[in-house]
Amino acid sequence: MTSADQNPDVVWLAADVGLLAPSRVGTRVEAATGDAAFLQAMLDAEAALVRAQVRIGRAPVSAAAAVTEAARAERFDVRGIALRARGGGNPVIPLVADLKAAVSVEAAPYVHQGATSQDIMDSAFMLVASRCVALVFDDLRRAVEALGRLAAAYQDTSMAGRTLTQHAVPTTFGLKAAGWRSLVLDGADRLVALHLPVQLGGAAGTLAAFEVPAGVSGSGSGSGLDLVEAYAEELGLVAPQLPWHTLRTPIADLAAALAVTVGAMGKIAADVLVLGRTEIGEVAEGDAGGSSAMPHKANPVRATVIAAAARQVPGLAAVLFGALAAEDERPAGAWHTEWQTLRELLRLAGGAAETAVGLVENLSVFPDRMLQNLQLTRGLVVSERLAAELGDLIGREPARTMLTEAAHQAVRDGRSLEEVLAEVPGLQGRISRDQLRRLADPVDYLGAASALVDRALERTLPTFSDGSGR
Amino acid sequence: MTSADQNPDVVWLAADVGLLAPSRVGTRVEAATGDAAFLQAMLDAEAALVRAQVRIGRAPVSAAAAVTEAARAERFDVRGIALRARGGGNPVIPLVADLKAAVSVEAAPYVHQGATSQDIMDSAFMLVASRCVALVFDDLRRAVEALGRLAAAYQDTSMAGRTLTQHAVPTTFGLKAAGWRSLVLDGADRLVALHLPVQLGGAAGTLAAFEVPAGVSGSGSGSGLDLVEAYAEELGLVAPQLPWHTLRTPIADLAAALAVTVGAMGKIAADVLVLGRTEIGEVAEGDAGGSSAMPHKANPVRATVIAAAARQVPGLAAVLFGALAAEDERPAGAWHTEWQTLRELLRLAGGAAETAVGLVENLSVFPDRMLQNLQLTRGLVVSERLAAELGDLIGREPARTMLTEAAHQAVRDGRSLEEVLAEVPGLQGRISRDQLRRLADPVDYLGAASALVDRALERTLPTFSDGSGR
Amino acid sequence: MTSADQNPDVVWLAADVGLLAPSRVGTRVEAATGDAAFLQAMLDAEAALVRAQVRIGRAPVSAAAAVTEAARAERFDVRGIALRARGGGNPVIPLVADLKAAVSVEAAPYVHQGATSQDIMDSAFMLVASRCVALVFDDLRRAVEALGRLAAAYQDTSMAGRTLTQHAVPTTFGLKAAGWRSLVLDGADRLVALHLPVQLGGAAGTLAAFEVPAGVSGSGSGSGLDLVEAYAEELGLVAPQLPWHTLRTPIADLAAALAVTVGAMGKIAADVLVLGRTEIGEVAEGDAGGSSAMPHKANPVRATVIAAAARQVPGLAAVLFGALAAEDERPAGAWHTEWQTLRELLRLAGGAAETAVGLVENLSVFPDRMLQNLQLTRGLVVSERLAAELGDLIGREPARTMLTEAAHQAVRDGRSLEEVLAEVPGLQGRISRDQLRRLADPVDYLGAASALVDRALERTLPTFSDGSGR
Amino acid sequence: MTSADQNPDVVWLAADVGLLAPSRVGTRVEAATGDAAFLQAMLDAEAALVRAQVRIGRAPVSAAAAVTEAARAERFDVRGIALRARGGGNPVIPLVADLKAAVSVEAAPYVHQGATSQDIMDSAFMLVASRCVALVFDDLRRAVEALGRLAAAYQDTSMAGRTLTQHAVPTTFGLKAAGWRSLVLDGADRLVALHLPVQLGGAAGTLAAFEVPAGVSGSGSGSGLDLVEAYAEELGLVAPQLPWHTLRTPIADLAAALAVTVGAMGKIAADVLVLGRTEIGEVAEGDAGGSSAMPHKANPVRATVIAAAARQVPGLAAVLFGALAAEDERPAGAWHTEWQTLRELLRLAGGAAETAVGLVENLSVFPDRMLQNLQLTRGLVVSERLAAELGDLIGREPARTMLTEAAHQAVRDGRSLEEVLAEVPGLQGRISRDQLRRLADPVDYLGAASALVDRALERTLPTFSDGSGR
Repeated sequence: MTSADQNPDVVWLAADVGLLAPSRVGTRVEAATGDAAFLQAMLDAEAALVRAQVRIGRAPVSAAAAVTEAARAERFDVRGIALRARGGGNPVIPLVADLKAAVSVEAAPYVHQGATSQDIMDSAFMLVASRCVALVFDDLRRAVEALGRLAAAYQDTSMAGRTLTQHAVPTTFGLKAAGWRSLVLDGADRLVALHLPVQLGGAAGTLAAFEVPAGVSGSGSGSGLDLVEAYAEELGLVAPQLPWHTLRTPIADLAAALAVTVGAMGKIAADVLVLGRTEIGEVAEGDAGGSSAMPHKANPVRATVIAAAARQVPGLAAVLFGALAAEDERPAGAWHTEWQTLRELLRLAGGAAETAVGLVENLSVFPDRMLQNLQLTRGLVVSERLAAELGDLIGREPARTMLTEAAHQAVRDGRSLEEVLAEVPGLQGRISRDQLRRLADPVDYLGAASALVDRALERTLPTFSDGSGR
Repeated sequence: MTSADQNPDVVWLAADVGLLAPSRVGTRVEAATGDAAFLQAMLDAEAALVRAQVRIGRAPVSAAAAVTEAARAERFDVRGIALRARGGGNPVIPLVADLKAAVSVEAAPYVHQGATSQDIMDSAFMLVASRCVALVFDDLRRAVEALGRLAAAYQDTSMAGRTLTQHAVPTTFGLKAAGWRSLVLDGADRLVALHLPVQLGGAAGTLAAFEVPAGVSGSGSGSGLDLVEAYAEELGLVAPQLPWHTLRTPIADLAAALAVTVGAMGKIAADVLVLGRTEIGEVAEGDAGGSSAMPHKANPVRATVIAAAARQVPGLAAVLFGALAAEDERPAGAWHTEWQTLRELLRLAGGAAETAVGLVENLSVFPDRMLQNLQLTRGLVVSERLAAELGDLIGREPARTMLTEAAHQAVRDGRSLEEVLAEVPGLQGRISRDQLRRLADPVDYLGAASALVDRALERTLPTFSDGSGR
Repeated sequence: MTSADQNPDVVWLAADVGLLAPSRVGTRVEAATGDAAFLQAMLDAEAALVRAQVRIGRAPVSAAAAVTEAARAERFDVRGIALRARGGGNPVIPLVADLKAAVSVEAAPYVHQGATSQDIMDSAFMLVASRCVALVFDDLRRAVEALGRLAAAYQDTSMAGRTLTQHAVPTTFGLKAAGWRSLVLDGADRLVALHLPVQLGGAAGTLAAFEVPAGVSGSGSGSGLDLVEAYAEELGLVAPQLPWHTLRTPIADLAAALAVTVGAMGKIAADVLVLGRTEIGEVAEGDAGGSSAMPHKANPVRATVIAAAARQVPGLAAVLFGALAAEDERPAGAWHTEWQTLRELLRLAGGAAETAVGLVENLSVFPDRMLQNLQLTRGLVVSERLAAELGDLIGREPARTMLTEAAHQAVRDGRSLEEVLAEVPGLQGRISRDQLRRLADPVDYLGAASALVDRALERTLPTFSDGSGR
Repeated sequence: MTSADQNPDVVWLAADVGLLAPSRVGTRVEAATGDAAFLQAMLDAEAALVRAQVRIGRAPVSAAAAVTEAARAERFDVRGIALRARGGGNPVIPLVADLKAAVSVEAAPYVHQGATSQDIMDSAFMLVASRCVALVFDDLRRAVEALGRLAAAYQDTSMAGRTLTQHAVPTTFGLKAAGWRSLVLDGADRLVALHLPVQLGGAAGTLAAFEVPAGVSGSGSGSGLDLVEAYAEELGLVAPQLPWHTLRTPIADLAAALAVTVGAMGKIAADVLVLGRTEIGEVAEGDAGGSSAMPHKANPVRATVIAAAARQVPGLAAVLFGALAAEDERPAGAWHTEWQTLRELLRLAGGAAETAVGLVENLSVFPDRMLQNLQLTRGLVVSERLAAELGDLIGREPARTMLTEAAHQAVRDGRSLEEVLAEVPGLQGRISRDQLRRLADPVDYLGAASALVDRALERTLPTFSDGSGR
């Protein structure tokens, strides 16, 4: 490929430092997924490989020490490596050259020994993913706590249940918050269930270069399979059953878990955006964002940027699912496709999670407004219940017809459904005004909402298999 | 909405009977996912609801019996229901009307009592999904068996490992088949892990209509939560912790599991398509398809239609992930989005799985051709090993340089790398011709391939939690 | 492949007759895109090919007449052809066999002469697409007319402009409707700009089989290029410069045009869903849909099913864009991917367009409610203007600070911004109460809204290049 | 939102400088789309707005001069602005504060006067897009030239036409290259047809803040519509008919044009990857990339990274199509979704285009290998022609049966089809050996390939409407 422009001004122009990404700029996951973080993860992978080879007797301790010492991202020219990556199509090739140059001639031959670029890239990606999953999980933990508090605090706070944009029957804000919490726990469960494997297979996944028989030179003793175990331990990742250069389930699982996680945040954001509309006003972001033009505006900025993340993630996950159909022992394109896509997915997930913590921890809830809105339809919101109860009195279909007519009349006349019904001849003497009033009271028609909240709050955060909570 | 044309000819013109869907036409999953199958599942859900209400004392046994007897899809006009569905936006509304009309006036009030359309649609979808998952799993089981046989039979059959379309180092067909099997098992694991819940929440998910207090009429005894349990048992599905009208993780999980499953098939197909190319010829579909124009052609039809399915599935999964961000207690669009999308996903997955069984059970493998291709590069395919071994003799960088030159010369002259190396002055006396010959023999450079196959074959098919293998 | 089950009951179970597709069931585009419609289009393509060959002297008139006469879909077994399509991976192979069998032995050899399956499939798809584009365009025409009426009728009807869910500054419903109309025109422009080409290239796109030189048999006279022209004329499609078996721009263009069209509808639906919320109530669907549970509900069904279509279309378009990267002279998968995907895209577009006509022709608009909502923020909605005007008086930053404080106080006290400002010491004597009142009147702050409507209404519907308006 | 970490080390860790993006690192489009480039475009938009206001008499010349002078990205802290963007959800808010601070108190009030953040962001995006489109177009121009040379040079070079991975009938490399060129021209046509509009509407798209009547202060003279015209002229963009804050066709058109363009490159890459396979060897990248492990490997790196881009672009385009359904006057999420998505799309398109230039300008073509491969099937590749010709002699179905048998025998015996056919009794005396030889010669069965190339080469590159070729 043609030599690229290395002018520092061009680098400055070219860099993405978060200007277009308010959902993640400045979040912890952003720093964990930058190019320097990936460079460090690649260096970690290279160093761990030499240490693993020491453990199976194929490299001297001194080489491992030298490479581990040298493997610090800030000593390398990340932009230079990026530019030279264009020649071979991946950054490991120039990185290995630079890492070899950074250690003694004695240590250099042990750098990247027997490995293929994909071993390092995939392992680095799993390292970065592991760090990000821990960050996201930590945010989910905080969100679960905040949502638990909201569900408990508003367990019996009535509000309109809305379906297809219309008031349906009453529900509670506690049940809504419990549902949000349940979704966040779904995300946490799926993150905890991930098995992030180290990658080590050599050029075509046979581990052949790690198993050169003691032929000409006689070097080495342990097997490739032993090396994989040692490598996994060095990196704190799982040892896979097979090299997975083109068996990409780990990537697809990660995509799915992150998509579920972001979808959970997306649901919360969607609800906050509706409930916070000027006309609805049932919730507000605690410290909402300003406008460049309008002094009075308090925008639901957190919900907005989460909603934006939720719109981007499914398409990225799809690209990763599509990369499962990877031909040969290393595909020409499907693998390269994963890099920016998975990184962006991690960033959006981490950004959405950190933003969601701020959203739910600072959410203002307005129970009075909820009650006020609930009464907007003048009792229509309990027409379902009236249909059932009056149906027992006068038959279901007659009751339904009567209610539909009464509902329309109540809206026309600006009166309550209770009042209109009290005048319906067919009900005279069959039901008292007191009974009617109670039946038409939305706050009295909440079904199992409270019990459901109790049940939902019993569900707890999962723990990582290493018991850490990571 | 305007009344739609009910002319039978129009129905005939409008129907999709598989003409454009060779991947699934005539497969078992196709019949399990047609409109009549969905209609039956909705009817099953309605009937199960009445039976569940009997179990908690809110409906008479006679009503359950009548509805169960009436709930047979072939008695209903599926197209008519479909057309009337346009008015309210879902087919449950007209279906309930027709089902009520199909039973006695005594039984009719118990039809759909307290339920919302989404309770029935979602439960029906889970029923259909459950049936499809069992079918797909059964196909995966057969594929795993066939692939296990292939992996064992060709455990030591050398072939070129290919990366970025080029010969890299040798591998074995056994390892490739073991990798395919491993992916299929990944799909099976994810299908088995699915929890397909019944849906029951009433209009806004509070179960209120199932819990009308013994007020005016005093009917009913059990609680809504009891009803959900009974309903789940009647349908053979899981009882969810919360109604999940807008907590759509079950749909996302299903999408992810199916995407992984189809991705597994897609990888197999991608490899078969490469290996079966006219110039490569290492495998062939046992009874490949013909051409409308060319008598000699034997097309890899199964791999082709699987590859096509694998291209469609990620986009469908993305649509379902996108529907996670569902506002309110029932969203205006996100839910409706799921229907055709999930059905098509099930069809593509089932079609791909059934097709893949045919593919792997009938795959012709040509070991001679594999060996012949492996020798195509005249030894270059083991340059990695030579680099390592000669590196021990003369230093890694000198060895690498020497090999690159020798490789180019071998290609230029049409000679083997072994021959060229034998003449290199720097190696004279440092390595024997015999040693060179052995080092340059691809069949002797397979690393842990055989051990990896052994290990992979130890992995077994998961079982469903009900022990059934479904 | 294994023979598939041809039991008629299975066909009944397998068919999709629209039960899960309320957006398109019963619409005109549904009948235009069913399997029978595709079968007819394939037959049309086969018949046109024979007629075209007559025109260049390579087939007898009698053959063309016989094939044209036989090519009626209702005479063929569409399900049987679909099932047999599984063997070769496409329906043209069995169709050609059946069509040959349906004509005399003399005519049979001229059926499909020189063609490849893709010639017929692609041409059939373009025929179906052409018919659908005309239907969609006709719906867009009606929508443009209705929206023009709305824009004119409500040209000066004030309503809240909403940004990030919050009231921003006033706008008019006329401008909103003019914007919708503009988007629909965008869709129409893109549909009219499509060039739908016939496909004819033979097995590998060289037209070789149409150009067998007068060697052994001497048959034929015209060239392949002549044949393509004649074929295009017979089918009423465009003659392409090159066979486009793997040059798929026409498919991508179609996907893009339909995505823009559906996106236009999706915008309208999104607005209707917001404006029709119970708390907002500024518009309603004229004859909204009912609920299976709640007598009072009037759901925005049309907007909902359009919104659902708009969520599905982008993913389908992406699959078609992905199929552009089609290898060789016919790809193994990418082409097959297009079939169901493009059909579903056409159905969703046609369904959305026909539904949108019903939506905009029957939309109820409530100007009183618009005005009432506009006053909800007690003048804050014009804070932007006050900031500018008062800025001229007392400096911009001081004015901004003053307004932010006044805005908060107005909300706290439930008073209008005008009242609060009238008491601010810094403004005393600098602006009269009358001036303040006028500045704070939302109806007086509409900028160029009316002029923009005038301008937008000047834009007219495009026409097809054949002048037809199709 | 919480204040984010501004530690410079975190910035370094967070930045994306292309390490994971070999398709675009170091390309011209990368520098044109970095955060600093977007910052500059926003500044350009702000400065142009003040200049436009001067032109309609609403700002003094001195203010325009001061803002234009100050609007240089290198003077601003792009990371700081990015971090502060998190508060309000977009970078324009902090940018405006900084820009005001960078000019005199006299000029400051004219900065961003009347505008909304989206006016600036959208205009900046269109500026960046315009610059990128020009770069991409320039690369397409070079690719068209190189492909034209390839098509002419190899106009009559026979090669196997391949369908569904199998040899079908012969074609020419010239026709393949002409097809590639045709696709690239399709991309160019769609880029040239784009109309990239300036955005200017104010808070809700009514231009109200640009039209404050000469009330209190009397400032201003021109109308908002005049301002839009002046603004468009200042920026060299198109003046739109309506503000398009939520009428996003320009974004969708851009997505579609870029998707078609990248799809064109993707097709070329897909073919190069197939044709360059070790076993096929008909083309090679002129200076292919190395491997980190294998000295002999020459990887098709350019085709690989283009293929990877082509896999990512459709999903990004889908996200942008999905954003068409944007509610209200500014949506809470859909707009924010566009930013990173469109930037990445531009980068992938620009990277793919620049890489494709390198690919096609340096492509090595091996006609000998093409001929050799064409003969691999020993004549089967012309079975279609033989079927037609012999069909004329002995009837089509008998000829087809005979050929299928002869084809299988030829493969079994390793003989040519011609030889086998010469021994078939049914043909004795009906066709001479010479005739058979000619009929079975692939090089003689190329149909209209050469004529199609001539025709395709007549098509020329479009020009931009400003005549520039940009």
